[in-house]
Amino acid sequence: MTIKVLGYAAQSAQNPLAPFQFERRNPRDNDVVIQILYCGVCHSDLHQAKNDWGFSIYPLVPGHEIVGRVISIGSQVTKFNEGDLVGIGCMVDSCRTCSACESEQEQYCENGNTQTYGSKDRYDQRPTYGGFSETMVCNQDFVLKIPKNLDIKAVLPLLCAGITTWSPLRHWNIGEGSKVAVVGLGGLGHMALKLAHTLGAEVTLFTRSLDKEQDAKNLGAHHVVLSTDEDKMNAVSNQFDLIIDTVPYEHDLKPYIPTLALNGTLVLVGYLGEIKPNSIPMIMGRKSIAGSLIGGIKETQELLDFCGNNNIVSEVEMIKIEHINEAFERMLKSDVKYRFVIDMKSLPKA
Amino acid sequence: MTIKVLGYAAQSAQNPLAPFQFERRNPRDNDVVIQILYCGVCHSDLHQAKNDWGFSIYPLVPGHEIVGRVISIGSQVTKFNEGDLVGIGCMVDSCRTCSACESEQEQYCENGNTQTYGSKDRYDQRPTYGGFSETMVCNQDFVLKIPKNLDIKAVLPLLCAGITTWSPLRHWNIGEGSKVAVVGLGGLGHMALKLAHTLGAEVTLFTRSLDKEQDAKNLGAHHVVLSTDEDKMNAVSNQFDLIIDTVPYEHDLKPYIPTLALNGTLVLVGYLGEIKPNSIPMIMGRKSIAGSLIGGIKETQELLDFCGNNNIVSEVEMIKIEHINEAFERMLKSDVKYRFVIDMKSLPKA
Repeated sequence: MTIKVLGYAAQSAQNPLAPFQFERRNPRDNDVVIQILYCGVCHSDLHQAKNDWGFSIYPLVPGHEIVGRVISIGSQVTKFNEGDLVGIGCMVDSCRTCSACESEQEQYCENGNTQTYGSKDRYDQRPTYGGFSETMVCNQDFVLKIPKNLDIKAVLPLLCAGITTWSPLRHWNIGEGSKVAVVGLGGLGHMALKLAHTLGAEVTLFTRSLDKEQDAKNLGAHHVVLSTDEDKMNAVSNQFDLIIDTVPYEHDLKPYIPTLALNGTLVLVGYLGEIKPNSIPMIMGRKSIAGSLIGGIKETQELLDFCGNNNIVSEVEMIKIEHINEAFERMLKSDVKYRFVIDMKSLPKA
Repeated sequence: MTIKVLGYAAQSAQNPLAPFQFERRNPRDNDVVIQILYCGVCHSDLHQAKNDWGFSIYPLVPGHEIVGRVISIGSQVTKFNEGDLVGIGCMVDSCRTCSACESEQEQYCENGNTQTYGSKDRYDQRPTYGGFSETMVCNQDFVLKIPKNLDIKAVLPLLCAGITTWSPLRHWNIGEGSKVAVVGLGGLGHMALKLAHTLGAEVTLFTRSLDKEQDAKNLGAHHVVLSTDEDKMNAVSNQFDLIIDTVPYEHDLKPYIPTLALNGTLVLVGYLGEIKPNSIPMIMGRKSIAGSLIGGIKETQELLDFCGNNNIVSEVEMIKIEHINEAFERMLKSDVKYRFVIDMKSLPKA
């Protein structure tokens, strides 16, 4: 028995996304079934649809920033009830037995977590399909509670862009008295500004074009520094406890390392590939370069609760699903402030 | 008034070291005057003598692993008495007012610490000359107490090689239950094995040639892994809380990063220049690459006391100062186990 679902899929790296009928598993005892209301559009959806990382499985239904309403629950589900407003992020399962899972860092599951799309279910080996669709079936342990006071359309990017910047902010103990810089002002960068600001840090945006200055300040930046201006960069040397680098393409890290404070860390959250820093400023101030991947489920719930308590949401632009390929095009040109969100009412009726 | 001192100096990058008569300042109120008994030979002595880093000042008297006896003290000296056995490492002064100095991390002094040689004194602007000489004059705050129970000839490398590996071991909280790997088995590497072992860690040496295996195990390694063997490297993936990379020349970091545990750090203590890691394994396990520079004075005293309590010294080969150029040649071929130490009695009499 399966559930028939309508979604949008890429059939290959060359095909645009198009309507696609598929099946989801019937709910197991610990599963909740969710009617998807909205789904955010992440840069990695685009990467995966185009097989930029080389491991895409087709047909591929993207979407890992999902908000919806519980429409039924399995017999062992204790955490959710029908009618609850819930979210699903980048993961839908993990091994639960490795040391990463046992320490609630399922994003780093040593046996590989089950991604919301493009993975295989750990039990029946069926492919996982993402949130560009009408319904999700997900184990309750990977479902998140959405604070009632927030605009749910604008909550979505918290589930990927938000948690990806929240996790390093928390891991490196950012708060009152900290100085944080953010590289790149896209989906991740705009969340990093909001979250670091609300945590009490003094926040700087590094940008290559000052036309983002007012936007950055509206989003929480106290300072905006033109990273191509050597004098301006020298003026902020040895300052930042944490630099969150959200840039998803190859770029030069050398200008940023000297701006780290003693014992500071530059954390890469967007770029996959070779980097070429110089060790000298690292050695001369015990500075680090690290990577960080989304966050664990407990940490993601903590972020959602923090955003509920502090009234933080993303900046989003609503689209209909038939415009998803156009949205991908615009994302390639960074023409979005700051996240596209699909209204699932726009899915054609089956 | 000055003190006439005999030493060995390089007069240029092209000249071998040769006898050199020079002057040290008369002791100020807070200075101690030290008769040098022994001086260790560090790879950076060779780099600086040859101006490999481009900032050498000639004539250059190398030597920053110094042990000697206090022969006189200034009027304000409270920490030492005549006859005390003392050490001097890589620094002889710092600004004392920046946040690094105030937090006892003088090695990272934001205004630049005063190096034992090749710097200029902060007060009289005279060049500093190192320990390849008969006498030192040094502010008491940068002088270290040598534990009485240790073989003083073998204590010397603690002041540079030892503290350079001790500081990251302490900063990253290595102890019982930690797994540490060391890359490179030279002056720094052999100290890293001894210190990590004595701190209670499980210790692995990464090597490119297994003929070092028995030596490494004698020095404290529990395991030796051939870093050129892909299978052997895969077998230790996701293991190490800290990797101390002591290699002083350009080398590929890519094989080592995947062997870091979740949240682990590879710390560079030997190589100055561009590095080319890949961010993917860093992001997939919140792994870091850091740099670290010697240690602060308080931390160096802590190391000396730890070594006194645990009876740890370096492995050294004694030389006469007239053989220093030959020793440099042998160091270039890694033909030393594991540190040359100059007996200053071999200096010609003035």
